Amino acid sequence: MDITVAIDAMGGDHGPHVTVPAALAYLKRDAEVNIVLVGLAEVIEAELRSLKVSVTSRLRIHHASEVVTMDDPPALSLRNKKDSSMRVAINLVKTGEANACVSAGNTGALMAISRFVLKMLPGIERPAIAGMMPTLNGHTHVLDLGANVDCTANHLLQFAVMGAMLVSAVEHKEAPTVGLLNIGEEDIKGNEVVKQTAELLRQSHLNFHGNVEGNDIYKGTTDVVVCDGFVGNVALKASEGLVQMLATFLRQEFKRNILTHLAGLIAYPVLSAFKKRLDHRRYNGASLLGLRGVVVKSHGSADSFAFQFAIERAVEEVRNGVLRRINEQMAMLNEEKA
Amino acid sequence: MDITVAIDAMGGDHGPHVTVPAALAYLKRDAEVNIVLVGLAEVIEAELRSLKVSVTSRLRIHHASEVVTMDDPPALSLRNKKDSSMRVAINLVKTGEANACVSAGNTGALMAISRFVLKMLPGIERPAIAGMMPTLNGHTHVLDLGANVDCTANHLLQFAVMGAMLVSAVEHKEAPTVGLLNIGEEDIKGNEVVKQTAELLRQSHLNFHGNVEGNDIYKGTTDVVVCDGFVGNVALKASEGLVQMLATFLRQEFKRNILTHLAGLIAYPVLSAFKKRLDHRRYNGASLLGLRGVVVKSHGSADSFAFQFAIERAVEEVRNGVLRRINEQMAMLNEEKA
Repeated sequence: MDITVAIDAMGGDHGPHVTVPAALAYLKRDAEVNIVLVGLAEVIEAELRSLKVSVTSRLRIHHASEVVTMDDPPALSLRNKKDSSMRVAINLVKTGEANACVSAGNTGALMAISRFVLKMLPGIERPAIAGMMPTLNGHTHVLDLGANVDCTANHLLQFAVMGAMLVSAVEHKEAPTVGLLNIGEEDIKGNEVVKQTAELLRQSHLNFHGNVEGNDIYKGTTDVVVCDGFVGNVALKASEGLVQMLATFLRQEFKRNILTHLAGLIAYPVLSAFKKRLDHRRYNGASLLGLRGVVVKSHGSADSFAFQFAIERAVEEVRNGVLRRINEQMAMLNEEKA
Repeated sequence: MDITVAIDAMGGDHGPHVTVPAALAYLKRDAEVNIVLVGLAEVIEAELRSLKVSVTSRLRIHHASEVVTMDDPPALSLRNKKDSSMRVAINLVKTGEANACVSAGNTGALMAISRFVLKMLPGIERPAIAGMMPTLNGHTHVLDLGANVDCTANHLLQFAVMGAMLVSAVEHKEAPTVGLLNIGEEDIKGNEVVKQTAELLRQSHLNFHGNVEGNDIYKGTTDVVVCDGFVGNVALKASEGLVQMLATFLRQEFKRNILTHLAGLIAYPVLSAFKKRLDHRRYNGASLLGLRGVVVKSHGSADSFAFQFAIERAVEEVRNGVLRRINEQMAMLNEEKA
């Protein structure tokens, strides 16, 4: 199965310096994939020249004259930058010239443009951002990570369907377990929306584990953790902040004096292995779910190594029919309701 | 200033085995403090005997015939256990025989009983749980950590007042900075409640920093971080889960083989210093704010070292008039509105 990925080559903090080498590296890894680099042709060509590579049948350039910046308000990017690399890459998915789009650009703009151009899948009211987080026993998928701040129980139910189908597609799990993020495991805990969602999930055909708490994310209690975008985003950002604080404290302790410096040198291979195990670059690539097309958001600061994981995520979603799976499940859900 | 603290001696996973030694140790540290140990007199006396200590003018026992367990539903604890150590300790605050109550018991029951017995301060609609979290530059105070799952903008404004006054009392800061937990720093971000709260905070006399994100908690961007109890609880529990996962990974890496074991031995003093710096026992003691009395909740699993921090927190709140400060600020707030 040939898969074509449209890459917003200008997106992210480093633009073509990252997206172009990542595309080249990915093409070597997966012979079934073709890549379209979308953006300012001159700049992309210059990057290819500097890497001593030229376009091939599997790698082509699609010119787009504008660039969405990290500071552009989503609404303005949508209205005023119709020839942006981001928008043109999404258009290629719309027209069927590409099977998926990957961008490290402005999340709000990517969400707004994707939604406007691709539209939502039947029965899905809101798109959600799903990301992977490391756990004691592997990893889990959390959604929504920030697309929706006010959610109804039906929205959360749809997120659960999308998250479960994402995991079934990219991890080949038949019936992924779904946990509902709450502040206690008991049914009576939580706010009204969460209680209603639990009821809907219990009635659904999904493999609903029940309520989970914040610590269950990292315990890996379930394959999928469902929450609204406000809570998901706070949990994600708080985790990032905590890891940064711990890393700083650890560095400071090892730099305290000559003995601790020496201990640090001796422990270096162990600390490196520890760090590698948590390497957030391996978790790069958040799925924008609910759209009539596969769109993956890379972290803006991703390097080439990290960006390849975002491409891989997009390829796996296409290869394993995540959209078809979501459609099938939504149809089942509607039958259950009827 | 003499301060009397009523301790629910039966509360927590370890009951008098922790609360009694902690009380004794605290009395040695602070000559202005008296402690009333509330609970089953026989059990407390046995604990004192085993420690070869007897009651004094500064340490007395107040018998209470019942105990609230960790599994007791809050409503039943309130209705059926009128002579529980928890309730009697709170009653002592109500009658003025004690200035504060400290309990490591069931949080829900402590909240329900405190609210029923002590009532709320004028103008405060909901009690909130405020806890201290470590940051890059010290620590910050986050509230609410789980008492309220559905909050209005006015509730969050009241939390901000209470949090700021807590910090002004226990850390002697004149105008503590207040951050509103959100999913972006821009004013337009967030849900409706948060946007309204930001507006109220901007109009208030508080030192409002603006929106903060999850990572700002650990950066220590503000002295106080305000959020609803659902978000606060998820952030807290996710952080606990993350730290446990990281600690497990680090242990696993140091136990991989004989060389890594050796590196671990050499790095041990550094890793210990690191661990000590993060010692959650130093952060033990969450304030139940908004009540007409000082109530501090210790973690259920606290040891004697940790429990002393909860006692200290209660003493400092009384000593520095946290209730008076909240009352004054609420009066100012009402004037501003009028």
